[in-house]
Amino acid sequence: MTIKEKAGQLVGTWAGQLSEFKSAEDVETEITEHNVGAVASFGWAGALDSRLDDVVETVNRLQEVALSETRLGIPLLFNVDAVHGHAYVAEGTAYPNGLGMAATWDEEGAETAADITATEVRKTGAHQNYSPTCDVAREPRWGRTFETFGESPFLCGRFAAAMVRGYQGEGLDDPESVVATAKHFPAYSEPVRGEDTAPVEVSSYLLRNVFLPSFLDAIDEGVASVMPCYNAIDGRPAHGSQEYLTDLLRGELGFDGTIVSDWNGVRMLHDDHRVTNDHRGSVRMTRDAGLDVASVDAIEHAAHLASLVEEGEVPEDVLDESLRRVLGLKFRLGLFEDAFVDASEAQEVVGTDEHRADALELSRKSMTLLQNDGTLPLDPDADVLVAGPNADDPIHQLGGWSVPDAAGTDVVTIRDGIESVCNGTVTYEQGATMNERLDVDAAVAAAEEADVAVVAVGENWYLHEFGPTAESGTEPDEFPNRTTLELPDAQRDLLKALHETGTPVVGVLVTGRPLAVEWMARSLPSLLMAYYPGTMGGQAVAETLFGEHNPSGKLPISVPRSAGHLPTRFNHFPHPTPIGPEEHLPSYDPLFAFGHGLSYTEFEFGSLSVTDETIPPHGTTTVEVPVENVGDRDGSTVVQVYVTDQPGSRVTPVRELCGFERVSVEPGATETVSITIDAASLGRVDDSGTLRAVPGDYTVQVEDQTTTVTVETNYD
Amino acid sequence: MTIKEKAGQLVGTWAGQLSEFKSAEDVETEITEHNVGAVASFGWAGALDSRLDDVVETVNRLQEVALSETRLGIPLLFNVDAVHGHAYVAEGTAYPNGLGMAATWDEEGAETAADITATEVRKTGAHQNYSPTCDVAREPRWGRTFETFGESPFLCGRFAAAMVRGYQGEGLDDPESVVATAKHFPAYSEPVRGEDTAPVEVSSYLLRNVFLPSFLDAIDEGVASVMPCYNAIDGRPAHGSQEYLTDLLRGELGFDGTIVSDWNGVRMLHDDHRVTNDHRGSVRMTRDAGLDVASVDAIEHAAHLASLVEEGEVPEDVLDESLRRVLGLKFRLGLFEDAFVDASEAQEVVGTDEHRADALELSRKSMTLLQNDGTLPLDPDADVLVAGPNADDPIHQLGGWSVPDAAGTDVVTIRDGIESVCNGTVTYEQGATMNERLDVDAAVAAAEEADVAVVAVGENWYLHEFGPTAESGTEPDEFPNRTTLELPDAQRDLLKALHETGTPVVGVLVTGRPLAVEWMARSLPSLLMAYYPGTMGGQAVAETLFGEHNPSGKLPISVPRSAGHLPTRFNHFPHPTPIGPEEHLPSYDPLFAFGHGLSYTEFEFGSLSVTDETIPPHGTTTVEVPVENVGDRDGSTVVQVYVTDQPGSRVTPVRELCGFERVSVEPGATETVSITIDAASLGRVDDSGTLRAVPGDYTVQVEDQTTTVTVETNYD
Repeated sequence: MTIKEKAGQLVGTWAGQLSEFKSAEDVETEITEHNVGAVASFGWAGALDSRLDDVVETVNRLQEVALSETRLGIPLLFNVDAVHGHAYVAEGTAYPNGLGMAATWDEEGAETAADITATEVRKTGAHQNYSPTCDVAREPRWGRTFETFGESPFLCGRFAAAMVRGYQGEGLDDPESVVATAKHFPAYSEPVRGEDTAPVEVSSYLLRNVFLPSFLDAIDEGVASVMPCYNAIDGRPAHGSQEYLTDLLRGELGFDGTIVSDWNGVRMLHDDHRVTNDHRGSVRMTRDAGLDVASVDAIEHAAHLASLVEEGEVPEDVLDESLRRVLGLKFRLGLFEDAFVDASEAQEVVGTDEHRADALELSRKSMTLLQNDGTLPLDPDADVLVAGPNADDPIHQLGGWSVPDAAGTDVVTIRDGIESVCNGTVTYEQGATMNERLDVDAAVAAAEEADVAVVAVGENWYLHEFGPTAESGTEPDEFPNRTTLELPDAQRDLLKALHETGTPVVGVLVTGRPLAVEWMARSLPSLLMAYYPGTMGGQAVAETLFGEHNPSGKLPISVPRSAGHLPTRFNHFPHPTPIGPEEHLPSYDPLFAFGHGLSYTEFEFGSLSVTDETIPPHGTTTVEVPVENVGDRDGSTVVQVYVTDQPGSRVTPVRELCGFERVSVEPGATETVSITIDAASLGRVDDSGTLRAVPGDYTVQVEDQTTTVTVETNYD
Repeated sequence: MTIKEKAGQLVGTWAGQLSEFKSAEDVETEITEHNVGAVASFGWAGALDSRLDDVVETVNRLQEVALSETRLGIPLLFNVDAVHGHAYVAEGTAYPNGLGMAATWDEEGAETAADITATEVRKTGAHQNYSPTCDVAREPRWGRTFETFGESPFLCGRFAAAMVRGYQGEGLDDPESVVATAKHFPAYSEPVRGEDTAPVEVSSYLLRNVFLPSFLDAIDEGVASVMPCYNAIDGRPAHGSQEYLTDLLRGELGFDGTIVSDWNGVRMLHDDHRVTNDHRGSVRMTRDAGLDVASVDAIEHAAHLASLVEEGEVPEDVLDESLRRVLGLKFRLGLFEDAFVDASEAQEVVGTDEHRADALELSRKSMTLLQNDGTLPLDPDADVLVAGPNADDPIHQLGGWSVPDAAGTDVVTIRDGIESVCNGTVTYEQGATMNERLDVDAAVAAAEEADVAVVAVGENWYLHEFGPTAESGTEPDEFPNRTTLELPDAQRDLLKALHETGTPVVGVLVTGRPLAVEWMARSLPSLLMAYYPGTMGGQAVAETLFGEHNPSGKLPISVPRSAGHLPTRFNHFPHPTPIGPEEHLPSYDPLFAFGHGLSYTEFEFGSLSVTDETIPPHGTTTVEVPVENVGDRDGSTVVQVYVTDQPGSRVTPVRELCGFERVSVEPGATETVSITIDAASLGRVDDSGTLRAVPGDYTVQVEDQTTTVTVETNYD
């Protein structure tokens, strides 16, 4: 291979509207003239294709060009952002977005969802999925909070690992698997000010113990690709950092897959971070750092890379090492045997009833009942007003990283769901858009006639910093944005007007992140957190409101009282109080706490025990607790195990999640839940990047019960 | 000396109300039986004495005991918190608190203030002052923001250095000098959530480049003592950290003075941070870390320390090394020659007219005119309503780290000042307390009769986390607290009611920190930031409002729009914008910007030049700019020089302050200001803790003019 041919394989391109429009013909030229090795023609917001037939046609057409019209005939690798199901293809199955997925506390469910997503993605022609996110939610002002699995490093790690298993299946030779991409390494999710891609200037201790664990879990599962974050950490932008990509990721963590840039991540080193003098300098910096693939940097990156190698500024060994990884992936995926997809097979596989049923089941499990005075479940014969900007908007319901246009989708909205579940009269009066009043008087009149009003408020479709405005429909200074966590006046006024009718108002939050809804919590009888619940979300909401489904979701993130209360995290560090603890506002006083979620039945926890009170550093113990359903209907709950470290040389959180298990119990029955805890998972990530047990005593807690587990000193 | 005698010299005690009440007799016992070496009997909020005669009497009495009733007769070292003048003694001179001091941008003024403070402190019997703070303001929710010199590391460093010069004079053998204490090392001022003493989990890069520079400046000036912060950084509480106290402070930074604990800082290692098993373990940890003096830990610490040495857990060398430093300080201070103070000399020196005049001058210079439509300056013959909770409250005006009780003080309030300056009728109607409405109707009626209403709103006296409630008078859930930056309803309602009368309302902010006063900025014609302006503050406010003084203060900190906009910092890092910059709210959009401050005259800046466009790494260049007063009255302004680094290997701020100079110009005249810039001050703090020049190009900016300075590569 020539240097130019090699360089081409190490860059990707796109078709559609990004900084400019690029047609399939343009991409063909990039393939034939520049040997570009990867393409994104579908699976993102501005992609060329979003309908199934178009997707498949373009994929096959471009593969044909790569195979037939280049000297080497190397097949293309297609990549997509199918982060919550195959949601950028109109016919695809969209699962709840990250936070909703995590609210299920159902790892097996997440694995199945990823497995189904892999099948839909692969059958439409893509091979690499830029998922799962390993980012731990730290800042709800950040516009990508909805993509995360919440604020517990442990929960994030368990879900990231499950998604990797689901995507990659038994191995990449499985024709229904895709390459999983753990992102965004090493730390994206605590940008200063909550501003997307702003620096994450956290200590090394936090970096290792908050941000790395979920990556460790993904790497343990054999994740085949990792994407750096856009951010600077310790003054170093990750895309150009040898410290993070080579020393830490490849060295300490032992990762040997491909490192793929985030979109324009290379270019930003000069343009935004100002750490290089020009684009060529940025290309060199990323290659010194250890990057393999520049995702949409395309032929400019390839040209610079070839030139850098030719002029001896980047060793050809570096090129060859990346090439080995990239071509190795294409071999393992079987692309050299068959690079084409079949349109009719795609039609049969994408968005099947079975897939939609699975999405519905996960959406149900994500439903998190925040408060309820008994108004829920609703009487199936009740007359219901359905209102609010998120009651009948398929796009708002899907949320970001989904098609921004409803054409061709088959989404069950909350209005649809209620109409199918409720036997009474269902009236719909929207009342407000995101930021504007509609006919509130009509909504009030309808509420006065109804037995109950279901008002779905929250957020719209957005990406990154709550945009782009063209797709989201809201300007940066409008809600949602990063400076406020409160609903805008239009939505609050609608809620208040309906509440003043005296008709019970049930609030449903269709939102990517926890909003500061103190008024709703104080005033409304019942409040349901629906997250962005996906294709079948409206059905899940309706079944939950009317009691056909008994809610079991638990918050994977704390709901703060206001932006002034941020950060509101259950796993904060302890600290002194020089003038007395009573002089401080609490360090943790959420509106709704991490792990919270109500049911229509009641559970009682029996006596907590552990199988082993003392364990070796490589050992495990099993926490056991009987769970009795003392109510009168079937229900599920999640047993959550927290740990508090006893004194050690460094400060540790006041409590941290270290185990959990979902359990279903029939009325009157008792199920004993057993949760195995590794000694290591009670420990810390040391300076070599290993999660290691720390000898000492640990307080293990389930609800209000505690016991002590001792990790023995390691004599080996 | 016995081990017990040595250990006693390494601890301090207090007299007054802390966790318990300790009388002078109790302290006598601690001295005679436990050889306690340091005492705080005045100079803090719960101190035994706050009136001059009492202070001196107790000091002399305890010194007498130490000299006559102990085997070795070692004199005591008394320490105080005289952080903005001798403000914990009722008769003392209180200067503007930290932020107000920094708003003067007058280093010489700060040095003189510290010099005068040292004289007052020393003549009342204390030898060490827990000042200056080197903490860089990073989080206005933090209750100690008012003690800082603002958000620029450069400005903080210059003021910290000036204060050290003022306190320590020509040397500690000067009988009017005190030991300065640079605090709180290494990083206190960005506690998570803004919660006092919560972890400061910033990157090593930020630690070195934001938090260390002001300590470097203080150490360069020969500061004789350093106090660790309460906080954990990188998981390590500073009081118990060998990394910070020995490796960094003594090793890299070469500090050889005493390291003195903050109050209860040792005890908190076990009680709060949970990094030791008991108090004895905490004592050991601090001695391993490099602490010299445990400030109020008193005899318990001494007993543990003696026992640790006796049992070989702490080497006696460690004890001796600390003892050498502590006794060395007492020798240098001349305490072995004369440890007593003279009551009549104290009366002559403390709070003299000369000192008060100096405080008035600095208070004037701190006055920062935020906005003005021409309503200011006021007509001296105008009829004025004076209102608001901070118009006539001496304690609110002094702010924290001052006597919490007005008895014996002689503070000129805003009301006093206006009554002395204004020839018209001055009516006073308070209208509101901090959080409660008073007779707003009466205030409205008075406003309707007046030509103008001056309304002083803001914050009360508080320490740390806005308490203690007993002294501050506000509960933790009331304003001021850390979760809101907005004025409480009572104060806002008063402002609105007066505004609605149509009488012009001039807002005066007497407050420790920048508040989010969007309504005031939008609605009121004129707004003056007065900070906590000290003893003479009301006079300075009045002179400014009526034009006897032309304001020249400049904000040393940005005023944010809301808590959701935090952090709002002029020197933030740049970062990418993946979906386009127009999709983001701005990274810096303060209500009032760092460096902002209006005058009653106007200045025009002539052409910017530098004496040397290219300088060696150890060189300097001088920025020159002519400043013309094009208005019709005398005025002063501050020329501010900012720098933007050209591309380097690590991300640097979008701009940083690197030089400034105050200048006074007569109407029609032009003064050329010359500001010398070190190459090093354009550089970065490297891994050895040295501020070092980084070769490359720098954009130097004054107002809207820029030029380039090149730092040459260092070939040596």
